[in-house]
Amino acid sequence: MTEVATVRRSRLTPEREAELYEAVLNLLREVGYDSLTMDAVATRTRSSKATLYRQWGGKAELVAHAIRHNKPGGDHSADTGSLRGDLHAMMAREDDCTMEQNAALMRGMAIAMHSNPDLLRAFRELLIEPEMAAMQRVLQRAVDRGEIPADNPARKYMPHMIIGAFATRTLLDDLPPTRDFLISYMDAVVLPALGVTSTT
Amino acid sequence: MTEVATVRRSRLTPEREAELYEAVLNLLREVGYDSLTMDAVATRTRSSKATLYRQWGGKAELVAHAIRHNKPGGDHSADTGSLRGDLHAMMAREDDCTMEQNAALMRGMAIAMHSNPDLLRAFRELLIEPEMAAMQRVLQRAVDRGEIPADNPARKYMPHMIIGAFATRTLLDDLPPTRDFLISYMDAVVLPALGVTSTT
Repeated sequence: MTEVATVRRSRLTPEREAELYEAVLNLLREVGYDSLTMDAVATRTRSSKATLYRQWGGKAELVAHAIRHNKPGGDHSADTGSLRGDLHAMMAREDDCTMEQNAALMRGMAIAMHSNPDLLRAFRELLIEPEMAAMQRVLQRAVDRGEIPADNPARKYMPHMIIGAFATRTLLDDLPPTRDFLISYMDAVVLPALGVTSTT
Repeated sequence: MTEVATVRRSRLTPEREAELYEAVLNLLREVGYDSLTMDAVATRTRSSKATLYRQWGGKAELVAHAIRHNKPGGDHSADTGSLRGDLHAMMAREDDCTMEQNAALMRGMAIAMHSNPDLLRAFRELLIEPEMAAMQRVLQRAVDRGEIPADNPARKYMPHMIIGAFATRTLLDDLPPTRDFLISYMDAVVLPALGVTSTT
């Protein structure tokens, strides 16, 4: 079994890697995960299939890497000096158009994950776990600043609160998730749940 | 265009209606929404397809009615005397086995809704809007009791908080939603977000 995280991709230049990922995302948006083939990626990027498999191990890993590469500021590293500032900065990384495109892409991926265990595994390792870890780093900074207690019971539910609102917005309101929606949700729900008043 | 809510179903006895809905849910679990046919429902329930279309208008409406019928205590009417009690009662309506089955069913429906606008419309009218209205009634009682202020900014995000946690639990934690999870989430997130301390 190939371990997702240990696949070597060191032979490609960063520019070539970015070009490959861009082509994979374009194909994903055009045909969806289930109809995307390694043949199509190879043709579109003028690569050999052998190279793709050697570098990424398989379609699930290639797609998860492409989506991760597309995420802006993946490490949530901006320390703005307050939890509220950090959460707002996290929500402001993408403009609304990009966010809507990515929400559509993620819905398609969520559907594909249910019938593709490889994809679910690659997503967990490359996208969900790093995202959850990044949220916990933001919260740890808030603990270190004295903004929230270390044993705050809402801490462990940060991903459910935030990813849940992002994921259900379209179904519940017939509207895409936007920066304004997410920032309003942070102030109305996430910060009060953590015991931080949103007026600071 | 058929308005979902105005389709007449008055000719069936409640027992016969319950029997039909049960058969629809069994078929849904067996083959999924896209492969479920009105022919199969007619055969399984010894009905004519004409009857099914006359009573429900179409497959989407029949399926949404069957799922709504299956929901326990759909009106959230239990007034336990406190918001915390009402929310816990809402989460305790289903045992964990039923909840896991229903979570799997709802994931399948969420997938089908993306390619079936009729199903999305029937779901909004028959399931999502009544659920959102029921949550707002629970909150209104809390306002009337003086537990939360009428202009609490987290009120409008109740569905995103709760349905979001239910929907993302499996993806984020590789575990089904359970009563214990949902009750813990209510105490750690939903009540504090609304400004209610969970220790009462």
